[in-house]
Amino acid sequence: MDFDPPESVRPILERIDRLLADHVLPAEAEVLERGWNGAAELLAGLRAKVKEAGLWGPQIPKELGGLGLDLVEHGLVSERLGRTPLGHYVFGAQAPDAGNLEILHKFGTDAQKAKWLEPLARGDIRSCFSMTEPDNAGSNPTMLSCVARVDGNDYVIDGRKWFTSSADGAAFAIAMVVTNPEADKHARASMVIVPCDTPGFRLVRNIPIMGDRGEGWASHGELEYINCRVPIENRLGPEGAGFLIAQERLGPGRIHHCMRWVGICERVFDLMCARAASRVIDDDGKTLATRQIIQAWIAEARAEVDASRLMVLNAAWTIQHKGFHAARDFVSTIKFYVADVMMRLIDRAIQVHGALGITSDTLLAHYYVHERGARIYDGPDEVHKMVVARRILARYGAKR
Amino acid sequence: MDFDPPESVRPILERIDRLLADHVLPAEAEVLERGWNGAAELLAGLRAKVKEAGLWGPQIPKELGGLGLDLVEHGLVSERLGRTPLGHYVFGAQAPDAGNLEILHKFGTDAQKAKWLEPLARGDIRSCFSMTEPDNAGSNPTMLSCVARVDGNDYVIDGRKWFTSSADGAAFAIAMVVTNPEADKHARASMVIVPCDTPGFRLVRNIPIMGDRGEGWASHGELEYINCRVPIENRLGPEGAGFLIAQERLGPGRIHHCMRWVGICERVFDLMCARAASRVIDDDGKTLATRQIIQAWIAEARAEVDASRLMVLNAAWTIQHKGFHAARDFVSTIKFYVADVMMRLIDRAIQVHGALGITSDTLLAHYYVHERGARIYDGPDEVHKMVVARRILARYGAKR
Amino acid sequence: MDFDPPESVRPILERIDRLLADHVLPAEAEVLERGWNGAAELLAGLRAKVKEAGLWGPQIPKELGGLGLDLVEHGLVSERLGRTPLGHYVFGAQAPDAGNLEILHKFGTDAQKAKWLEPLARGDIRSCFSMTEPDNAGSNPTMLSCVARVDGNDYVIDGRKWFTSSADGAAFAIAMVVTNPEADKHARASMVIVPCDTPGFRLVRNIPIMGDRGEGWASHGELEYINCRVPIENRLGPEGAGFLIAQERLGPGRIHHCMRWVGICERVFDLMCARAASRVIDDDGKTLATRQIIQAWIAEARAEVDASRLMVLNAAWTIQHKGFHAARDFVSTIKFYVADVMMRLIDRAIQVHGALGITSDTLLAHYYVHERGARIYDGPDEVHKMVVARRILARYGAKR
Amino acid sequence: MDFDPPESVRPILERIDRLLADHVLPAEAEVLERGWNGAAELLAGLRAKVKEAGLWGPQIPKELGGLGLDLVEHGLVSERLGRTPLGHYVFGAQAPDAGNLEILHKFGTDAQKAKWLEPLARGDIRSCFSMTEPDNAGSNPTMLSCVARVDGNDYVIDGRKWFTSSADGAAFAIAMVVTNPEADKHARASMVIVPCDTPGFRLVRNIPIMGDRGEGWASHGELEYINCRVPIENRLGPEGAGFLIAQERLGPGRIHHCMRWVGICERVFDLMCARAASRVIDDDGKTLATRQIIQAWIAEARAEVDASRLMVLNAAWTIQHKGFHAARDFVSTIKFYVADVMMRLIDRAIQVHGALGITSDTLLAHYYVHERGARIYDGPDEVHKMVVARRILARYGAKR
Repeated sequence: MDFDPPESVRPILERIDRLLADHVLPAEAEVLERGWNGAAELLAGLRAKVKEAGLWGPQIPKELGGLGLDLVEHGLVSERLGRTPLGHYVFGAQAPDAGNLEILHKFGTDAQKAKWLEPLARGDIRSCFSMTEPDNAGSNPTMLSCVARVDGNDYVIDGRKWFTSSADGAAFAIAMVVTNPEADKHARASMVIVPCDTPGFRLVRNIPIMGDRGEGWASHGELEYINCRVPIENRLGPEGAGFLIAQERLGPGRIHHCMRWVGICERVFDLMCARAASRVIDDDGKTLATRQIIQAWIAEARAEVDASRLMVLNAAWTIQHKGFHAARDFVSTIKFYVADVMMRLIDRAIQVHGALGITSDTLLAHYYVHERGARIYDGPDEVHKMVVARRILARYGAKR
Repeated sequence: MDFDPPESVRPILERIDRLLADHVLPAEAEVLERGWNGAAELLAGLRAKVKEAGLWGPQIPKELGGLGLDLVEHGLVSERLGRTPLGHYVFGAQAPDAGNLEILHKFGTDAQKAKWLEPLARGDIRSCFSMTEPDNAGSNPTMLSCVARVDGNDYVIDGRKWFTSSADGAAFAIAMVVTNPEADKHARASMVIVPCDTPGFRLVRNIPIMGDRGEGWASHGELEYINCRVPIENRLGPEGAGFLIAQERLGPGRIHHCMRWVGICERVFDLMCARAASRVIDDDGKTLATRQIIQAWIAEARAEVDASRLMVLNAAWTIQHKGFHAARDFVSTIKFYVADVMMRLIDRAIQVHGALGITSDTLLAHYYVHERGARIYDGPDEVHKMVVARRILARYGAKR
Repeated sequence: MDFDPPESVRPILERIDRLLADHVLPAEAEVLERGWNGAAELLAGLRAKVKEAGLWGPQIPKELGGLGLDLVEHGLVSERLGRTPLGHYVFGAQAPDAGNLEILHKFGTDAQKAKWLEPLARGDIRSCFSMTEPDNAGSNPTMLSCVARVDGNDYVIDGRKWFTSSADGAAFAIAMVVTNPEADKHARASMVIVPCDTPGFRLVRNIPIMGDRGEGWASHGELEYINCRVPIENRLGPEGAGFLIAQERLGPGRIHHCMRWVGICERVFDLMCARAASRVIDDDGKTLATRQIIQAWIAEARAEVDASRLMVLNAAWTIQHKGFHAARDFVSTIKFYVADVMMRLIDRAIQVHGALGITSDTLLAHYYVHERGARIYDGPDEVHKMVVARRILARYGAKR
Repeated sequence: MDFDPPESVRPILERIDRLLADHVLPAEAEVLERGWNGAAELLAGLRAKVKEAGLWGPQIPKELGGLGLDLVEHGLVSERLGRTPLGHYVFGAQAPDAGNLEILHKFGTDAQKAKWLEPLARGDIRSCFSMTEPDNAGSNPTMLSCVARVDGNDYVIDGRKWFTSSADGAAFAIAMVVTNPEADKHARASMVIVPCDTPGFRLVRNIPIMGDRGEGWASHGELEYINCRVPIENRLGPEGAGFLIAQERLGPGRIHHCMRWVGICERVFDLMCARAASRVIDDDGKTLATRQIIQAWIAEARAEVDASRLMVLNAAWTIQHKGFHAARDFVSTIKFYVADVMMRLIDRAIQVHGALGITSDTLLAHYYVHERGARIYDGPDEVHKMVVARRILARYGAKR
């Protein structure tokens, strides 16, 4: 048993911390104020600094120019990057590119790799992952209605997607489409690479999230595919393997996300403690830090955030050392556990900040608005709970 | 004992419901999309319809052209209006004008009434209430630093305020300012009417609430008073009576707010049930309504919203029939109880809506963002809990 | 609208309060220590005092020697009696006799009334209600397996029951038995009066509740009916009407129970505040009352207990003035809402008492142990939530 | 990083599991039914089996005949033993003997060791730890009033203690007594070994815990020391070192307790799942396992119990590898986090069992009653939260 971070990653973590403190955190407010496009140059400069420091692409394979960290190592990095909304982007570890990169690397043809993977790994282009549909329950992957029919050497895609994050400005989408509606439930869909300049591919709008449409990478697109034609060779992996590949993308993605949330928790915890320690509330100069309710929140948060980190690292370690199957329950429980810890912590930190907490003058409102989806995307809490419980109950002989 | 709404108000409630359904709800999306200034004409049209229907100003005294409802009656109206973000504004019952109107009516001189109260009651002008300060704990009213010194026949005001709601476009502010720093803790401040075109009065910005600055009535201003000179005759009520008058404003304001929240709860409950009943989640056509967790949320919400309504009406009835003093505990408990019920309900309704819930395509995101302050303004939950508990514990002989 | 207790009942409440304070509360510890049988004489003396004071049987019809209070009035009385575990028993308002009395009064034949109802109303005998079965989900009334077959002029009953409260020492049971297994789901069962000295009727054991078997009235029996023969004329009400009559028993029973819980809450609240106000925790003589977490608990409890009382009284008033059907949702929501408030309050009061709280030196442990069933009997919380939610969702067009 | 149990302990865990399954679990019901004294012979037989298997005293130093496991190893063992109320006792790892053994080993003189430690380590005698006082807040160690004054070569002890667990039948107590009331706050008290047959030492009663007085090892004594005279050489460790030694006892004790709670959680989780999987709730044979609320409870419990185990092992590992000081926050947070997880899980498991859950027919009622103290002893949750939060806030510059 050993609860220390692997030695291999410790110096990397330190250098990341330093770079974040020196360059990224100071730029944070400006990027959030000006938006991802408005601050494009500033962000490019930060990425250049990261590359210069040899820290680009912590999870990207070495042969593609990244650090090639394993799951536990990158989990620890992801926590660090999660301490600022800019972190993952600036270090080349942002969703959905990270996941796309992973499946392109694993399932792409040489031609696909040359054309899409390599520039993606360098950060020269961006991509999106187009799976969720507005009229179908996202938690049920068999309820897809976006269809790709074969016509000659092409797929012709028709359908509607939404929450295709970062579609705005992306070079290509990886679209989950039904290629064989007659097949078995889990074999109906395939993944197809769709360049975003393909006729018939249209970004209908950036969906306003709690009033904020965002832009560029920081946006969630609603897409229309109308008679959208791409060559069959753009299919990623075998016909009908859409869900298998999506599953593949899931485990590591879950770790990255959950550790990012742990990073957010630590940042928010920091803000909460700093506020409590400095906010004077009476004529004797007493601060909020002397209030027992605030103290209870801090203690509870400390316990829960530590629990979250341990759970996610344990899940990552188990995937890495015993395989995904052995880690299945962990991968389910961290999703709802950590998201819940994060959202309650953000809510309490807002409360500690009083009126300031609901303004955009601190980072809290950004998280309150933009991380609320954590309890919904990749399947709502309730579905994950049901799934893991059914798996457990089956071991006790329960029939469904 | 009688739990039915007073007969006097039942026909009014019915007519309000009809007007809301026929005219206000259909305009809601457009107003939220275009903003309070952009939709000014549309809103003016709605107000005209309300006046035409003889429903203007439910809580405004009859001699000022309103319906002159009592606290319980207006509480019930406020719930109805609360079912849409447009309700109170369109019916002339919106904060902060409603509260300002009340204290102008009670404490204003004839000249003040003629100049400010009458156009305010007609809805010809708007006003704001300028009390909270950015650098001082709002929950401690003795920590004010905005000062008005006497200079000849004038007050000269210097200081900074924020969360002066609806300052953008207001004709005048009622400002809480220190007029006698040497006086007893609760007698230091006075209220002064400051016309918004007074030199030295400046709206620094509309504070972004969770990213949304708002505009016009639907905004929260940060204000600067620099060498801002108004005649002493603009003082509302006696010198040093600022907190007493603020207290006066509190009881009925609390009822209005809490019943507005109950209205929000009912609207959100409606959205949640309608979504659950219609959202198909599996291939057999089963809906979310068949899921036990959703059912539990609905049952719990039903219980808590009913509890909220009863508690607020009981508080209103007690103020009305036994005086504010007898109702003090109730007035404290409803503040945190109802706000908590509302925010948890909004959060769960979002969860029931899945990805749709975090978009601005339903009303939920609006409430999630713009009602979060309910647990903070007029004193954070924690302060109300402390206050009411100390009062109770004193009856058990507790020393502080 | 009127939130005051009906004038009719106010003097009764005052006299009850006095009698409780003067005679019942002082006897409480002794009864709990010695048990219901051990303290039989003491209890009989208290009952005599109650009769002498003309307060016997608040809910018992006047013609049977009670006060004949209506539902709201008795609800208020039930809260008062609930402040001590002795209250209902001493005033002749205890379950299950109160419910049995009600259905005997409504459905009994003259002979049944003379034989069973009258001595029951006088408190000369006790009874039990024998419905729940150990191997069948109590929340599903159609899953009964206790059967009564007709043999000549007799029913011959075979089966097993448990949680037949107060069977120990009862004169008769009202047993819910299947008389027509072929009938429609809700028409299979009938109610039959079974004298406890009938051969074949056996009290197997008093079930230990959290280690406490109890005795006499304060016990929960497990029963065996083996070839237990009673005349058909012992059937209460029509053949097949078992569930209808059980339903009938439910509404008023719910009100009585929930108001009793409110009474428990008030007692526990009292204990919690008195402890907080007197327990010194530091060298300066500060008490627990100065701790903000305790204060928050007190404030939250105050809000929730007030909410509970209002909800139950509203349900009672609605049943009384608009009929049971109009009150159905209320009758469901108060069950789980009030039980939850009570159990959380008891738990927190224990916490405030520290080590003392887990001992039997205060009343808290008694409630913690003996009221835990409140969230289970008459249907677990989860079932009530499901039932009320489905009813609500049906109004939104949800299919099951 | 390595989340697997140390290899050294794996075979031990397996053998413990087998012995528990084969011998201890089958005896559990009888011991709980007959009591610790009534089942003395049965328990002695089990202990003999444990010794025979070479598994006696997992945490006892090897030179004293135990396994000499380190903190992480024994933590893992403690979880296993925690799965039955008999576990720790039968394996010689029960509180308070384990803690007493530890400090005797560390601070005892050779004579003290020969007389008390050796028979204790063999399980030939039992002991108790006499610290908490009925009239003083246990969470404030400086509020002791039990005094030992020097008289010749003796201490003469006067005072009252309670919650001296296992005093009934113990051979000696280690008593925390004030030996120098004039000293610095934390140097006033010393620890003194008091043989239980010393005149003036009296077990007033076994305190009824939620109605259960218990007996023998499974009891909590209230003690009187009246003119109780023991030789000064019975002092354990230096004069005034009482609190230092108590602190010493705390770290490992916390780990043992918390891992025992994790074991209880696993047992209760098991009971809950088995019940859900087997309890039929409708006519189609569906079980509770199909209910989404039950599923959610199972998933949440799974997450929280895993979190608990990881947190406690992390605390143990940190103490062991980096020292107690580095682990201080962890040692505080696990106390309230794990106790809370355990009590909520027990409560939910009861709910899943319905009426059966509140009876003594399953183990749940035993835990509900006898583990409620977990949130109180060694300092109530609220105090631990305050302590850890203040320590954290001090790092942010907060003044007290």
